[in-house]
Amino acid sequence: MSAAVRFPVLEVFGPTVQGEGMVVGRKTMFIRTAGCDYRCSWCDSAFTWDGSARDEIRLFTAAEILDDLHRVGGDSFDHVTISGGNPALLKELGVLVELLHAEGMTVALETQGSRWQPWLPMIDDMTLSPKPPSSGMGTDWDVLDNIVARLSAAGSRFCMKVVVFDEDDLCYAREVHERYPEVPFYLQAGNDNLTEEEPSAMLPYLVQRYEWLINAAMGDNSLRKVHVLPQLHTWVWGNKKGV
Amino acid sequence: MSAAVRFPVLEVFGPTVQGEGMVVGRKTMFIRTAGCDYRCSWCDSAFTWDGSARDEIRLFTAAEILDDLHRVGGDSFDHVTISGGNPALLKELGVLVELLHAEGMTVALETQGSRWQPWLPMIDDMTLSPKPPSSGMGTDWDVLDNIVARLSAAGSRFCMKVVVFDEDDLCYAREVHERYPEVPFYLQAGNDNLTEEEPSAMLPYLVQRYEWLINAAMGDNSLRKVHVLPQLHTWVWGNKKGV
Repeated sequence: MSAAVRFPVLEVFGPTVQGEGMVVGRKTMFIRTAGCDYRCSWCDSAFTWDGSARDEIRLFTAAEILDDLHRVGGDSFDHVTISGGNPALLKELGVLVELLHAEGMTVALETQGSRWQPWLPMIDDMTLSPKPPSSGMGTDWDVLDNIVARLSAAGSRFCMKVVVFDEDDLCYAREVHERYPEVPFYLQAGNDNLTEEEPSAMLPYLVQRYEWLINAAMGDNSLRKVHVLPQLHTWVWGNKKGV
Repeated sequence: MSAAVRFPVLEVFGPTVQGEGMVVGRKTMFIRTAGCDYRCSWCDSAFTWDGSARDEIRLFTAAEILDDLHRVGGDSFDHVTISGGNPALLKELGVLVELLHAEGMTVALETQGSRWQPWLPMIDDMTLSPKPPSSGMGTDWDVLDNIVARLSAAGSRFCMKVVVFDEDDLCYAREVHERYPEVPFYLQAGNDNLTEEEPSAMLPYLVQRYEWLINAAMGDNSLRKVHVLPQLHTWVWGNKKGV
């Protein structure tokens, strides 16, 4: 690995709150990488893979990403979240993680769990989010089993997260939880309104979807060791980018 | 300690989601104990100490509490949250915590940190929530220092949480965070509308208060290792009790 390796970066923004998952509410900076091996029907960051933002991709070294984090976020942060796209496509991303650690940062990363990388156990707050049927994507269970086994063996702090839009997704979530019962499990209410930019218009709908998911999970004996969360950022900012 | 010791219980409800703090979103049962050494101006559970629910207090043994948890919540839970009032007033509550542990439950507890008890380190998800100026209460820093030192020495998993209503509260929160920089720190947007029962009427106000607190925390260099969260249950259910 070399310090000169470059990564395709689409957005650097923050500090803001992490709106979902295992560190929901955490003050963090976001780095969004370009490129994905999936094409989820409801992807809220389709610009990372559909070509629409191709001209905005910057090829940054790890040092340039660190500079950009401070240019955008000042000195008011100690936590960085790497999202995508699927950042686990980037073989040498460990170079960036090492640099952020050397700067005293805690590093979170989210991936669907379709690709192993040797640097995955270095991530401090690791989220595997396999995609449910409503995404239109399939899960390669052998690959996911392998990633879970390796992260567990490495003593990583990681969780599984499944976004749920409907009953089929809920069945899939149960299957994931029963397959990996020891892994902390997060159910997330899906947002299938990706065009509304006015939060007040979305809010009642999002709350209703969250309440539906709570009710579904609360009466279900197979879902015990679970968290049920919304996407807080959509409650506050709707679909606005960069917050 | 004796298995026959009785605890003053006001509510047993759930399973529902924990709406705030370090395990926000977690599927849990709630036990609310009666009695408090504080009288916070904005307390959302004043019935635990103002005498208004005196006739609803049941004096339960630990075994009776366990029975009630299963009567109310069935078998669909593995996490129990003890709240108050101030449950840390109860000298022998360790009897209940031990029984819940023996049943395979994870136990969370919240207290303002005004009273040490030898069973505090047994709690799995422990929240100390000292009260800011808007509460009208003062903080005994010697007592709080002592509790933090003992929990740290015991290797407990605990966090600090400060509810914030205004700028003075935010100054207080900074003071707490700077005093205990190594303790995971949660800022919570306060709800000072305690009478509205219609969630849709409260929602825009609560979101606005949360966004104010996010903005205040994001630009503040002294607040780095922090989480900023709302009370999710009030977003979904308003001030309704027992959910």
